[in-house]
Amino acid sequence: MDKETVIVLAPDSFKESMTAKQACEAMQRGIHRVNPHVRCVHVPMADGGEGTMQSLVDATGGQIHMIPVRGPLGQEVQASLGIMGDGKTAVLEMASASGIGLVPVADRNPMAATTYGTGQLIHAALERGVEKILIGIGGSATNDGGAGALQALGGRLLDADGKELGPGGGELGKLARIDLTNLNPRLSNVQVEVACDVTNPLCGPEGASRVFGPQKGATQEMIELLDANLRHYAQRIKSQLGRDAAEVPGAGAAGGLGAGLMVFLNGTLKRGIEMVIEYTGLERKVQEADMVWTGEGSIDFQTQFGKTPLGVARVARRHQKPVVAFAGRIGDDIETLYAEGIDAIFGLMQGASTLENALKQGEKNMERVSENVMRLMMKLETSRMRI
Amino acid sequence: MDKETVIVLAPDSFKESMTAKQACEAMQRGIHRVNPHVRCVHVPMADGGEGTMQSLVDATGGQIHMIPVRGPLGQEVQASLGIMGDGKTAVLEMASASGIGLVPVADRNPMAATTYGTGQLIHAALERGVEKILIGIGGSATNDGGAGALQALGGRLLDADGKELGPGGGELGKLARIDLTNLNPRLSNVQVEVACDVTNPLCGPEGASRVFGPQKGATQEMIELLDANLRHYAQRIKSQLGRDAAEVPGAGAAGGLGAGLMVFLNGTLKRGIEMVIEYTGLERKVQEADMVWTGEGSIDFQTQFGKTPLGVARVARRHQKPVVAFAGRIGDDIETLYAEGIDAIFGLMQGASTLENALKQGEKNMERVSENVMRLMMKLETSRMRI
Repeated sequence: MDKETVIVLAPDSFKESMTAKQACEAMQRGIHRVNPHVRCVHVPMADGGEGTMQSLVDATGGQIHMIPVRGPLGQEVQASLGIMGDGKTAVLEMASASGIGLVPVADRNPMAATTYGTGQLIHAALERGVEKILIGIGGSATNDGGAGALQALGGRLLDADGKELGPGGGELGKLARIDLTNLNPRLSNVQVEVACDVTNPLCGPEGASRVFGPQKGATQEMIELLDANLRHYAQRIKSQLGRDAAEVPGAGAAGGLGAGLMVFLNGTLKRGIEMVIEYTGLERKVQEADMVWTGEGSIDFQTQFGKTPLGVARVARRHQKPVVAFAGRIGDDIETLYAEGIDAIFGLMQGASTLENALKQGEKNMERVSENVMRLMMKLETSRMRI
Repeated sequence: MDKETVIVLAPDSFKESMTAKQACEAMQRGIHRVNPHVRCVHVPMADGGEGTMQSLVDATGGQIHMIPVRGPLGQEVQASLGIMGDGKTAVLEMASASGIGLVPVADRNPMAATTYGTGQLIHAALERGVEKILIGIGGSATNDGGAGALQALGGRLLDADGKELGPGGGELGKLARIDLTNLNPRLSNVQVEVACDVTNPLCGPEGASRVFGPQKGATQEMIELLDANLRHYAQRIKSQLGRDAAEVPGAGAAGGLGAGLMVFLNGTLKRGIEMVIEYTGLERKVQEADMVWTGEGSIDFQTQFGKTPLGVARVARRHQKPVVAFAGRIGDDIETLYAEGIDAIFGLMQGASTLENALKQGEKNMERVSENVMRLMMKLETSRMRI
């Protein structure tokens, strides 16, 4: 060994099996069983969806605070606010406060569901004096255009009688006036970045209500009403504030929270994986490493899975570093992944197994497969075999 | 690439999924997708059990002949006789003619089951003028000490009235005289080698009847009788022929066929994997290669599985060649396999799956995993990364 070997470990979480940090640790255990002198740089990743807050906190050595907020249908929920290692950047997921997972299937109702709790999480971040807030907005239960979040931050949404609107997208048709007088003043000193991978506009056939409404429990009638209400809301915003985000790609994300964050918080939207790559400092770490290991519970090219390994591989390719990926499930269309810079993909399974059992064995399997990849690498090195 | 790279592909069959030859071909497809210049030397392996005939025929470019013989309970079955590529060596599996798999569970009866068909297979080999016969004896339905096989080859087993004994271990108690006058004369010019991994003696607490009788359908009463009959049979052989194989380890294999082949055919017993290694010429091929790939459906250290990868690895280790193993199922105790010379073990599974589906996907999975191991190796080579 001429010099210290450095491997960047940059897996996503393996959903329902291990966090990205746990995956890093299992990889390292496998590597160190073979060669304890390899330096493993842990960069727990995410793609902007579930697990993003956890990974960014883990990657930067930050902290998670539990904040009691109003859930989508008004019940109190404990939501997570991440403060990254620099102490100046907050990271949160709207799903933690206003997510579909917080509402039993039978109770789902996008007419009534509110993003109020997400606003409270943002408020909690502001109170901690952060300079930047990163927001993941996947998995919402809501269709309120971010109206609830605005209300939680001091904005007022009034009907023709000057009465505050109630929660949910069903109320927005009554909106007559927006009052930002009491909007939390700290917002003007804070940069808001939103992780968003969808490109839907706020309204219309590709808009929030029509595309995402059904999975939130909207009937056909509700969808018509919700879509009309968001259109009215956007018109009010435009005529009163001179802001128009309705057609910006991503405005329709999270029931229109995308649009709300853009117009009221000056939020900028970016792809989730790009945000995570930026805030974990992945590129610099890759640059200083000999090799990169990544992975995700499921990897293929045609679904929503595999964004993280692909994003990591693109960074690694820029610096000509070998990339090995690990996955619990490997899809059929992996040719493209090779072309994008993933050099080899290894499955984690020990044998035929139910998904439930496979998920339980995640860390053990990751350790074993990591050990074997490392064993092969070491053997090739020591045998001086040439291919 | 300084010189041609040569990889020996020496997997066992993957039971119920692919023959060893199909596994070789799938490995090669995977390798050649990455680097078509690698020379793949196919050495389909077996461990002396099921698949041994197929692999030795495949490894040597031989032929398989279907021979109609008398099955364990008298019904005609089509048994397989392999003639290896040299045209001088036959290989057969007793299970093909007298195997437990040929008898429905309800009909199993070691009192009546005969090795006659195995004798007919040996006869067919002799007729083809071979110089050597290799016999795998796993998976028998019989407990007749090879009496049936002897009868098929011209030997006579007579009772006190000079009447030929009927089929099955239940008859042996009546044996009064053995008449080898008409024994096929070709047998004296033929060398018989028996693949046998068990060490049981013919009779007693560790003997054929007690240890293997129950799985062949023997009741407790039958076991007592079968054991006494084999003991009587051995005594007759000893007093009349002066041969005593009853205590030789392996005499009790295949319901005593082990003993029968030793005393009547001068057969020598050896471990199955050693026989296969010898007749495939594995050692020389490994010596000339850069690397060895092996595998089996299931690999661990504590069961009957994994004998082939282990045997292959021991050969490879003698010549300091890297060994990669592939398995559909990887057991928990694989540490020992590393110590024995397997450098890395990779699972074939694509994700959570039923065994049935996994077996169907065997070749596709083997090709994918082989491709990825090769991709990793190529990348390490081209990146000149040092561990």
